[in-house]
Amino acid sequence: MSAASTPTDALPSNPRSADSIESWWGEYDVVVVGFGVAGGAAAIEAQRAGASTLILERATRGGGATALSEGTVYFGGGTRVQKAAGFDDSLENMLAHVKGAAGPTADPEKVQLYCENSLNHFEFFESCGVEFKDTYYDHKVIFPPTDDCLIYSGNEQAHPFSEEATPIPRGHKPKKEGSAGGYIIEQMIQTFEAEGGTIQNESRVQTLIQDETGRVVGVLALIEGEARAIRANRGVILTTGGFIMNRDMVERFAPDLAKCRFPIGSEGCDGSGIRMGMGVGGNAINMNEGLMTTPFFPPASHIKGLLVSTRGQRFINEDCYHGRVTDAIMKKADGKAYLIVDDALYDEEGMLARYKMAAVEETIEELEASLGIPESHLAHTFEAYNRSAEKGEDPIFNKASKYVTPLNNPPFAALDLAVDESIWAVFTLGGLETKASGEVLSVDGEIVGGLYAAGRASAGLTRSGSHYASGMSIGGSSFFGRMAGKNAAKSA
Amino acid sequence: MSAASTPTDALPSNPRSADSIESWWGEYDVVVVGFGVAGGAAAIEAQRAGASTLILERATRGGGATALSEGTVYFGGGTRVQKAAGFDDSLENMLAHVKGAAGPTADPEKVQLYCENSLNHFEFFESCGVEFKDTYYDHKVIFPPTDDCLIYSGNEQAHPFSEEATPIPRGHKPKKEGSAGGYIIEQMIQTFEAEGGTIQNESRVQTLIQDETGRVVGVLALIEGEARAIRANRGVILTTGGFIMNRDMVERFAPDLAKCRFPIGSEGCDGSGIRMGMGVGGNAINMNEGLMTTPFFPPASHIKGLLVSTRGQRFINEDCYHGRVTDAIMKKADGKAYLIVDDALYDEEGMLARYKMAAVEETIEELEASLGIPESHLAHTFEAYNRSAEKGEDPIFNKASKYVTPLNNPPFAALDLAVDESIWAVFTLGGLETKASGEVLSVDGEIVGGLYAAGRASAGLTRSGSHYASGMSIGGSSFFGRMAGKNAAKSA
Repeated sequence: MSAASTPTDALPSNPRSADSIESWWGEYDVVVVGFGVAGGAAAIEAQRAGASTLILERATRGGGATALSEGTVYFGGGTRVQKAAGFDDSLENMLAHVKGAAGPTADPEKVQLYCENSLNHFEFFESCGVEFKDTYYDHKVIFPPTDDCLIYSGNEQAHPFSEEATPIPRGHKPKKEGSAGGYIIEQMIQTFEAEGGTIQNESRVQTLIQDETGRVVGVLALIEGEARAIRANRGVILTTGGFIMNRDMVERFAPDLAKCRFPIGSEGCDGSGIRMGMGVGGNAINMNEGLMTTPFFPPASHIKGLLVSTRGQRFINEDCYHGRVTDAIMKKADGKAYLIVDDALYDEEGMLARYKMAAVEETIEELEASLGIPESHLAHTFEAYNRSAEKGEDPIFNKASKYVTPLNNPPFAALDLAVDESIWAVFTLGGLETKASGEVLSVDGEIVGGLYAAGRASAGLTRSGSHYASGMSIGGSSFFGRMAGKNAAKSA
Repeated sequence: MSAASTPTDALPSNPRSADSIESWWGEYDVVVVGFGVAGGAAAIEAQRAGASTLILERATRGGGATALSEGTVYFGGGTRVQKAAGFDDSLENMLAHVKGAAGPTADPEKVQLYCENSLNHFEFFESCGVEFKDTYYDHKVIFPPTDDCLIYSGNEQAHPFSEEATPIPRGHKPKKEGSAGGYIIEQMIQTFEAEGGTIQNESRVQTLIQDETGRVVGVLALIEGEARAIRANRGVILTTGGFIMNRDMVERFAPDLAKCRFPIGSEGCDGSGIRMGMGVGGNAINMNEGLMTTPFFPPASHIKGLLVSTRGQRFINEDCYHGRVTDAIMKKADGKAYLIVDDALYDEEGMLARYKMAAVEETIEELEASLGIPESHLAHTFEAYNRSAEKGEDPIFNKASKYVTPLNNPPFAALDLAVDESIWAVFTLGGLETKASGEVLSVDGEIVGGLYAAGRASAGLTRSGSHYASGMSIGGSSFFGRMAGKNAAKSA
């Protein structure tokens, strides 16, 4: 597996030894691999700390998975926008929520740092020219279609999260109609270049270069058709994204994610950075986890419907974040579920995604038979739900009362949300194990010298699809990208 | 991460370079690390193939996790014992079952080879002096308390496995009263020594030694208090077991398994071999998976009870293998479940494990209230179950009819099977990614020269706690240990 054995081999996990490099094409203090939001944030901080910084981007221009996203960033603790919109958030309250939302395997130090520095992180975005409007968008959406800013982007209002902290919206979308991920990256490109940083697009990093002590001292990149060695005197930062576009890796590491047919990612999300890091002793964790989501709302009225398994059982409160609901369909209902709505709730016009209509019937008993659910199971689920719903209660799964109403307006429709029948989008949440500083760790917990990682190439702030909130990827990736940039810049 | 940077460091993932070795304490063709059933099988085959073979065992004598087990081995396709007991198995039928039982992420090549060579593998055990009695033990047990051999040791008779292949028992316990894992190892120790192999007990392998091409050429072991280098001219085989005794690794890689309070393993199951392999570029997969099990039977009568969540819902057919049921409690019922039996089924004397009695009541409605289950949910579960049970049917989860009977003899008792209230045993099923040959692979799919792995140090035959059968660990570990031994012996 050493460099010497495969001098011409471009497999990411085969590092090259510095001894084998005849000439260096370039030399920088810090080299950042990949220009999504993690790479941009890392590079800007490294450059601001006085390190000469190069970003190597594989595509013709920066963007990565960030540019494909809506651009929501998870800020809190009392941002200017939160205050202007009349929400009274605090560090304690944000921490109480994020401790749960980062998932049961989250790194407590990362959670703490992220929350403590959230106002500063908001200012960092503004310092990059990213603007946020002081408005709240009061609808149950995945992101505001307008240039409005603040939304509830996660599980804040849903049980059990609503018990753990006072619900406050923390999803901040930049002042841009529709999706704003590309806008964030464009502002970062301009900022980084204006501050003296160097961007080399169309450069595909093949592997890392190590010195004789094992320290990472550079990268080998394919630029203009040639393999070029670039020295990084203070550190290499891998911000190459996750691995959802690498089918082979998804099947080996994350079999549930492999069942989802709509990967969300750029071409670069092929795990190359994770593999490069592993090749020099970096450990990868959380590799089976990801965000799976089928967008069964909007319309918000459908949240008042009942989500049931093929056995007619409910298994989750339907008002959770779409990712949490989808994760429950996969793990608790074997990837198959129906969303059942009555005629009063059904809103074909308002549907973000199309679902196959599995059955429409005048009574629940007929619907149960049409769906092949054993007798009485769906009927009991409805009878019990409607009985409590008369009082606005859902004692079994604690859906919030504003979404609890009896379903008694026939006909009843069952939409098919099965993973093999409907739109399930997916991306990965596993990657290189890092300290909060961005330093990559070995399986024995030792620091891999000269190597940093952030964004989806690392196991970052948010580790669980059943706890995730929109904005935690861009938020966490950019925050820990900044940490990596600052720390690499001051490394010896 | 290279050897040169940490010459005195004993972290497993820090390999040493051969250049740094001043003198070699010993030299063999094949060095096997760890003497459980995988190591024993590997070493015997290597020695039989003409390679001088050394086993380095950390404890005072071989055994590992195998010696702690009941010693069941999963054989099929028409063994002498199966035939004598009147069961007509075939390769096709065994394959049809094992394809499912190895789990959804199994390696099809390993499944195929394991089944095709099962009769030969039975003969291998006999060639090591392990005896099997030609008898079938016709009870629903975890293993025969007698010296009888054949049992149904997995999910063969349970839905949906019972639809995929004709149910046939394949768990073969050696001719030994009670547990027989230690007996298997003792026979292997005698066989290996009689055939000229060398065993060095009380030797703790610290890390691997690589040559300048990255090939593994030996190990560094702590023997009699000194670090000693041992050369392996043809290959090193890691058979060091899983990582269930390494709390830190379990928490980082397998959070669900970390919730179980009774790790099954020897002191050596600390992941050292997995970490050594990762340190030279080996990839680890399936790291989040394991076998979790709470032994709610015997008594067999309790299988006729109903397993329900804290919401009063059933979620699995109770006649599955105990590991499958336990996996479902964790994943589908959030780690909490009650086993409800009536007075006719309750058998305190026959219980293998003790469970806390959560409630005892004269009616299901009272039991529902005592357990805090929202009104009508448990009552409906019982009403629907009893209605179908009158016909011997379980239309919702397809429990086999011999376990389906109405529960209508008060009082009704609820046993608490929650992970934090009861005995949940656990071991890991993740490890180094290997070819069927035993060769260790990198994350890029490249062979790590000179390195082999088998047993729980690798991701082997059986990959899923929800599909597992007793005997597949010892069966798969020994079979792929043999493959590794044969292949290492003939390596250049």
